[in-house]
Amino acid sequence: MTTVTVWNEYRHERNDEEAREVYPEGIHATIADFLEDEGFETRTATLDEPEHGLTEEVLDDTDVLTWWGHEAHDEVEDEIVERVHERVLSGMGLLVLHSGHFSKIFKRLMGTTCDLKWRNEGEKERLWLVEPGHPIAEGVPESIEVPEAEMYGERFDVPAPDTLVFNSWFEGGEVFRSGCCYRRGSGRVFYFRPGHETYPIYKQPEIQKVVANAVSWATPISNSDTSFGNVPKPPEDG
Amino acid sequence: MTTVTVWNEYRHERNDEEAREVYPEGIHATIADFLEDEGFETRTATLDEPEHGLTEEVLDDTDVLTWWGHEAHDEVEDEIVERVHERVLSGMGLLVLHSGHFSKIFKRLMGTTCDLKWRNEGEKERLWLVEPGHPIAEGVPESIEVPEAEMYGERFDVPAPDTLVFNSWFEGGEVFRSGCCYRRGSGRVFYFRPGHETYPIYKQPEIQKVVANAVSWATPISNSDTSFGNVPKPPEDG
Amino acid sequence: MTTVTVWNEYRHERNDEEAREVYPEGIHATIADFLEDEGFETRTATLDEPEHGLTEEVLDDTDVLTWWGHEAHDEVEDEIVERVHERVLSGMGLLVLHSGHFSKIFKRLMGTTCDLKWRNEGEKERLWLVEPGHPIAEGVPESIEVPEAEMYGERFDVPAPDTLVFNSWFEGGEVFRSGCCYRRGSGRVFYFRPGHETYPIYKQPEIQKVVANAVSWATPISNSDTSFGNVPKPPEDG
Amino acid sequence: MTTVTVWNEYRHERNDEEAREVYPEGIHATIADFLEDEGFETRTATLDEPEHGLTEEVLDDTDVLTWWGHEAHDEVEDEIVERVHERVLSGMGLLVLHSGHFSKIFKRLMGTTCDLKWRNEGEKERLWLVEPGHPIAEGVPESIEVPEAEMYGERFDVPAPDTLVFNSWFEGGEVFRSGCCYRRGSGRVFYFRPGHETYPIYKQPEIQKVVANAVSWATPISNSDTSFGNVPKPPEDG
Repeated sequence: MTTVTVWNEYRHERNDEEAREVYPEGIHATIADFLEDEGFETRTATLDEPEHGLTEEVLDDTDVLTWWGHEAHDEVEDEIVERVHERVLSGMGLLVLHSGHFSKIFKRLMGTTCDLKWRNEGEKERLWLVEPGHPIAEGVPESIEVPEAEMYGERFDVPAPDTLVFNSWFEGGEVFRSGCCYRRGSGRVFYFRPGHETYPIYKQPEIQKVVANAVSWATPISNSDTSFGNVPKPPEDG
Repeated sequence: MTTVTVWNEYRHERNDEEAREVYPEGIHATIADFLEDEGFETRTATLDEPEHGLTEEVLDDTDVLTWWGHEAHDEVEDEIVERVHERVLSGMGLLVLHSGHFSKIFKRLMGTTCDLKWRNEGEKERLWLVEPGHPIAEGVPESIEVPEAEMYGERFDVPAPDTLVFNSWFEGGEVFRSGCCYRRGSGRVFYFRPGHETYPIYKQPEIQKVVANAVSWATPISNSDTSFGNVPKPPEDG
Repeated sequence: MTTVTVWNEYRHERNDEEAREVYPEGIHATIADFLEDEGFETRTATLDEPEHGLTEEVLDDTDVLTWWGHEAHDEVEDEIVERVHERVLSGMGLLVLHSGHFSKIFKRLMGTTCDLKWRNEGEKERLWLVEPGHPIAEGVPESIEVPEAEMYGERFDVPAPDTLVFNSWFEGGEVFRSGCCYRRGSGRVFYFRPGHETYPIYKQPEIQKVVANAVSWATPISNSDTSFGNVPKPPEDG
Repeated sequence: MTTVTVWNEYRHERNDEEAREVYPEGIHATIADFLEDEGFETRTATLDEPEHGLTEEVLDDTDVLTWWGHEAHDEVEDEIVERVHERVLSGMGLLVLHSGHFSKIFKRLMGTTCDLKWRNEGEKERLWLVEPGHPIAEGVPESIEVPEAEMYGERFDVPAPDTLVFNSWFEGGEVFRSGCCYRRGSGRVFYFRPGHETYPIYKQPEIQKVVANAVSWATPISNSDTSFGNVPKPPEDG
């Protein structure tokens, strides 16, 4: 069974009234709850825990890590970023959610600025499915409407995704590649745009379905045979 | 110097008043004109000419072929489609414009239905550049507004493009991958969504710039060394 | 449970002594057997059955179709090719094996010649895993040695695969992209190079493991919401 | 005209007799020479110059940077790596050669370990062209033989290239994706495997041709319009 660690910066929901009303127990609690309901084993971890809750022991027991952060990306210690980075390259799945596009770990994996346009006016977003046969699309309708969202617009400065699953439309006139699959090392990374601390987006069933599908998709396979380095003896020498 | 053959079905502009007003000499004349101005050598060819104007001689002297068709895709003879197909695989560039998504040649190259959603209500379209460093983006602003367009919406049933250059936003709520690069055989194919017989879209300078850039990008390189078939003697036998 | 239809031309094994010795019941029997052992529900179908064994009823009950053909590609009726093509675009998985690169259905889906270099001298082949985190790599060693194989060499004239899983080395000096994933329509296609009528390649456990993994990977998801065509009412009209 | 800065670690050729015999003026001198002959404007820069020769002024006047390093990757200062990284994302082309796979700048751009297998026994390498229509393939034969090379073998731990142009075969039994195109930010990156301090590989005309083609391909286009950050006014407000 896939074990998920749901990571959250967990600042807005403690310091900002509006965010607390939407996610009183924190965004991580909401995400962990619906993933439990989908049959995953879940735990949570947050920024202000020792080692941000991401100890070697926790990561040893994590198949997929979900990441939500917004205002305190810089407070994530580089050592923990390196630790998570190594785990992803070794096969751990990673789901980067919404404002996590600017997290150290996502920028580290992408190698680019991960910058974009944004506007927080509660605009309508509509996600269109561009790859209906992809596992992340299982049981997902061909479009998902998010009534109120912070807009993210192109150019999204990331490497072209290995697979683009969703494209978003925004009321104010922008578009965004909002569901992006990447393979990095032996691990799989999914960037999923929707979600914000002041909109109840993670309470929408279709959004929950996508996140759950992405967890399944990012679950590592058992394959630990890759070797690197000097190979003094050619295979052809038998 | 790149030689371009601008192909047009050329029916709407002869039979439909509204189209004739926008493109009195035919869409091909407008496209050939601005490509001439950009320094390309151009000729035109149309459906009702013998062999649809695409004789072996014409194709021998064509670096890039642009394709516009809408209501008479079925009248293009299979033999000519095969002829063009072979040329593309051998290196000839192909630009497929707007309703050309349903042309025989595009479907032949893609291997899929190339179907999509559509609505012709003169909606506003805004193309966003998602790959600003791509040659097709040279000198192109980060977004292009088309005041009135026929809407095309996702799911666009094509293989994922090798490179996605533009993403379109539509007034009515849809999005579309509107600038798609493909490599097929030794040839390059660019699908570009904008353009319609009753809107003066090919008269917009930014749209013309994209088409001209795409012609440059799709120009074949000189490389005719690829061999296929039985190789009785292994390279290792020297 | 995934249901697999194992298709075979089934001519060599009846007409050619050498092939009959390796696969006395036909290649399809060997493939169906090991897939059964892996827990799939299997049936077989062959060229000389009515409708090549690929009736609408059979395809209605097929999640993944595997395809092996070599000397009689032209005898596969176009109508059946179209039938299979539609099924793939609607989500049915397709595994194209070895000489199936020249089958009508593979060429139809790829849109290219699918040509390559070849030499049948019983050379050693070594498949290297280039994407160790891919589901098709589950439990597969980092290289697989095939003691005797027909060589296929680059240039392989196919669209660049969405994901390249294996790269092959050949004794005589060539390389080949030997495990290629494609998404076409809602379906997934895997081309897997190894296998030949006169070498017992499909009896190798690692090769069997790859084929079984590919069947799992290509199993359709449940998602039938994609709509196409005219959408008179914009989503924004509510 | 494209201006190229040819960067070299330049240690082997000063400290190691064998390397000095092959490249008495340094690898950078050889590369700069043949690029001059191809019509590019070139300069060189080396590790032991102030700021490694990569001052802001030098980079202001660089369209494409080529990178060769082997034993002293760690001595490249992080500040210079960040400077080069920003330039690449802003459009500067980057060619990473051979052992540069382990340079800080390449790892920074890829986001992965960039590890591989290696063996330095002077084995024969044969590069096969897998994308004959690609601009980097212009005038290049379908295979290039390198008589003696250090072997690099898969798994090469990089993101799947946007385009794979060459695949290498090695005498000892390995394969390698040896010509890999990436788009990062507005810049283009080409990793090209051949080259080593003790083999005269950069004196081979076909190898020189590929490097020259890659410089042309990686030359930035003029397009500086991309904007990021807050967009308070939606485009739809006119």
